Amino acid sequence: MSITPNTAESRVRQQARAAKQAAQFLATTSIELRNSALEAISEELIASEQAILAANALDIEAARLEGVHESLIDRLMLNPERLAGCRQALAELIASSDVLGEVVEGRTITQGIHMKQVRVPLGVVGMIYEARPNVTIDAASIAIKTGNSILLRGGKIAQQTNDVLVEVLRRALLKTGLPEEALQNLDARSRDSADELMKLHGLVDVLIPRGGAGLIKSVVENSKVPVIETGTGNCHAYLHKAAEPEMALSIVMNAKTQRPSVCNAIESLLVDRSVADILLPAILAALADAGVTLVCDEEAKTIASAQNIPEGMLLDASEEDWGTEYLDMTISVKVVSGIDEAIAHINAYGSSHSEAIITDDYAAAQKFTTGVDAAAVYVNASTRFCDGGLFGLGAEIGISTQKLHARGPMGAKALTSTKYILEGNGQVRA
Amino acid sequence: MSITPNTAESRVRQQARAAKQAAQFLATTSIELRNSALEAISEELIASEQAILAANALDIEAARLEGVHESLIDRLMLNPERLAGCRQALAELIASSDVLGEVVEGRTITQGIHMKQVRVPLGVVGMIYEARPNVTIDAASIAIKTGNSILLRGGKIAQQTNDVLVEVLRRALLKTGLPEEALQNLDARSRDSADELMKLHGLVDVLIPRGGAGLIKSVVENSKVPVIETGTGNCHAYLHKAAEPEMALSIVMNAKTQRPSVCNAIESLLVDRSVADILLPAILAALADAGVTLVCDEEAKTIASAQNIPEGMLLDASEEDWGTEYLDMTISVKVVSGIDEAIAHINAYGSSHSEAIITDDYAAAQKFTTGVDAAAVYVNASTRFCDGGLFGLGAEIGISTQKLHARGPMGAKALTSTKYILEGNGQVRA
Repeated sequence: MSITPNTAESRVRQQARAAKQAAQFLATTSIELRNSALEAISEELIASEQAILAANALDIEAARLEGVHESLIDRLMLNPERLAGCRQALAELIASSDVLGEVVEGRTITQGIHMKQVRVPLGVVGMIYEARPNVTIDAASIAIKTGNSILLRGGKIAQQTNDVLVEVLRRALLKTGLPEEALQNLDARSRDSADELMKLHGLVDVLIPRGGAGLIKSVVENSKVPVIETGTGNCHAYLHKAAEPEMALSIVMNAKTQRPSVCNAIESLLVDRSVADILLPAILAALADAGVTLVCDEEAKTIASAQNIPEGMLLDASEEDWGTEYLDMTISVKVVSGIDEAIAHINAYGSSHSEAIITDDYAAAQKFTTGVDAAAVYVNASTRFCDGGLFGLGAEIGISTQKLHARGPMGAKALTSTKYILEGNGQVRA
Repeated sequence: MSITPNTAESRVRQQARAAKQAAQFLATTSIELRNSALEAISEELIASEQAILAANALDIEAARLEGVHESLIDRLMLNPERLAGCRQALAELIASSDVLGEVVEGRTITQGIHMKQVRVPLGVVGMIYEARPNVTIDAASIAIKTGNSILLRGGKIAQQTNDVLVEVLRRALLKTGLPEEALQNLDARSRDSADELMKLHGLVDVLIPRGGAGLIKSVVENSKVPVIETGTGNCHAYLHKAAEPEMALSIVMNAKTQRPSVCNAIESLLVDRSVADILLPAILAALADAGVTLVCDEEAKTIASAQNIPEGMLLDASEEDWGTEYLDMTISVKVVSGIDEAIAHINAYGSSHSEAIITDDYAAAQKFTTGVDAAAVYVNASTRFCDGGLFGLGAEIGISTQKLHARGPMGAKALTSTKYILEGNGQVRA
C-alpha cells in the first residue's frame, strides 16, 4: 500500500488519510488530555452558540422552503435547551472513566513471556447519519474520548449547521493541542461522499449508520468498510398466560404510546390464546382510546370488535404486518398458542432489538430470555428502557442490532478494539 | 421475513435455514450435553478412521492426477497421526470451560431493574476454507462447544474427505441427541456454494475465510454476511538501536526460518541506521546461510554485499516488496532512521498481524507497543508465538487481522455474542 497521496483521489479519501494520521497521534494521548479537549468543546459550544443557532436557522429556512416534513424539521432544530442537553451529556462523558488501556486479560504464557490483551482505539470511525445535529456533537465527543478520529457525514438538510459545529469542535481540539484533522466533516450535499466513504476499507475502521431503515440497509449492503448495524426496532411484547393483567396493561401502554417513533417502542403485541379474552379487552380499548390503530389477526379482531373500537382504528393484519416497524401510533396484534409459538414468531419477524415477556411463571421467563434471539430481552419491564444511559454505559453511540462486536446499546467500548502485547527477554519458539 | 420455505431457493439457503433452526435448539443446551457430543465425535473418529482415510486417499489420488502441487497435497493429507492430533485438540476443547452464560457485566439500574449482559452463541457460523480437512473437525468442534451451528465450505480437492468427515460428525451429534442439521457440508465442487453462502445475511451470522490472500480478499469484498478477516501476515522485526545483538539474531532466525510459510513468520526486517553496520552483517549472513533470499534497500544491500552473499540470494527491493508476504525463504530488509520511521513504515505496509521490536530501551518498547497498529506486538520475543494455544485461549479458529469483534488469535469467545437480560416487576419508563 503506497503512502504517497494520489492527487487524483477523492476529497473524502484525502480526509480519511488525514484522519488516520491524526488517529495515530490520538492513540498515544492521556485521558487528561482527551478530557480537556472535551471541556474545551463545551466552552466553545457556549462561546459560539449564536453562530451555531444562526447556521441552524438558515438550514431550517431552506428545509421549510423545500417542503421538508415538520417532524424532520423538529429533528433538525437546535435551540439553547438542546445545546444545554449536549453539554450535560459532555459533562457526563468527561466524568466517565477511560476505557482505553483496560487489560482485558493477561497472563504469563509459555517460557515466561508476559502477555496482556489491552483495549485500544479503533482508529478512524465513520458515521453516516440523518439530520440530527446533536449527533454531530455526541459522536465527535465519544470519538475523542476514546482516542479515535471521526469522519462525519450528516444529512444534507443540516449541512450549514454541521459545517459550523465541526469548525467549533475543531477549534476546541486546536486549543488543546490535538490535531484538528481528527474531526472531518463530509459534504452531504451529494450522495457521492457517502458512497466514497463506504469504499474506504483499510482507511476507515468502522462505519456506523444512524437513521431510517433505508439508509441502514443501503450501508449494510454496500459498504466495504465494516459496519455496525443499528436500530430498526420491530419490538414485541408477549403476554404469557401467567401475565398479571394490570402489569401487562401498563407496560404495553408505556412501550407503545410514550414515544412511538423511537426504535425501542413496541410494534407488535402477542397474547396467549388461553388468556386473550381476559387480557385483550382492556388493553385494546386503552390503546384505541389513546389513538393507536390496531392491526389484528382474526381472533384479536373478534375481541376488539366487542370493545366498540371505531372501524377506522381496527384493521386486518397481513403477513407483512408482522415484520413492519410502524414507528407511529399503530400496533399489530396476534393471538398465539403458547410460548413456543411466541418465541418462534419473534425470532422470525423481530429485528433483534428489544423483546419483552410479561409473566409470573419462572420457567416461562427463563425460556423466553434464553430462546429469543435479540439484543435485549425483558421480563416484566418496558422495552422503553433500552438506552445506553439507562443501562449504565454512559454515552450512547447507537443501538446495535447485529451480533458481532457490539450488541444492544453501544457505549464507548464499541469504539475500541484490543491488541495483544507480549513482553519477553529473547524467547524463540521451540 | 416469511418463514415459509421457498421451494425454488438454493440448496445452500435450505441448508442455512436448517442450521439456523438447529442453532435455536443448541442455544438451550447444557455444557454437559455439548461436551458429550464432542466425546462422541472423538469416538466416531476412531470408529470410522478407515473410512475417513479411504476417502482421503481418493481425494489425494484425484488431486495428483490433476497435477496439484505437493505442498497442497501435504495439507490435504490425513493420516493416523494427524487424526490423533485432532482428537488431542478435541480433548483439550472438552476440558476447557464453557464461555456461554458468562455474565460480562451486570448491575441494578434505574427503578430497581436487574440488568445483566450474558454471553450467548452467535448462531450460525459459516466457514470457507481451503483444503485442510483437520479444519473441518476443529471448526465443527468449536462450533458445537459454543452452541453454534456451522456451514462448512471446504476446498474442492477435499470434497470426498469432507463428505465422510461431516457424516461422521453428524452421527456423533445424533448419538448424543443433538440435531444433525447443526453441521452442514456445502458442495465445494463449484464456486456457487461459496457465492451463495456470502449472500445469506440474516441466516448466517458470521463468515470466516481461512486460506490464501486471494480467498480472503474475495470474501471480505463480496460477502453480505459479516466477515472476520483472517491471517495474512506481512510481519516485521524491527531492530532498534538498543537491540542486544545475540537476541536480535536468534529472534530473527526463529521468526523467519522456523516455518516460513505460516502467517506469523516475519517477512521484513527493519534496522536502525546507527546500528546497521553492527547488527546486519551477522544476521544477513546467517539468513543467507540458511537459504533465505535477501531483498534489500540500497543501504542493506551494501552491507550484505560485504558478506559474500551469493548474487542470486541478494535482490533489490522495490516499494512493492515492503507490502509483500513471501511465505517462503525470502525476507525484505530496510534501514530506517529511527523508531518513528519504523512505526510509520510498519503501519503503512504491515497487515496488522504480528510486529516485533528488539530493544533494551524501555521508552522505545513502550512507544512501539502503543504506536504500532497490529493485532499483536512483541518486545524481545519471536512473532512465532502468535497462536491461540500458546496465548492460553484453548482452541483456535483462526487469527483475525481486523479490529472489530475479535483481533489476533481467536478462541471460543469469537463465536459468541452477548445479550442484555432485564428483569423487572412491572417498571415503565417515566
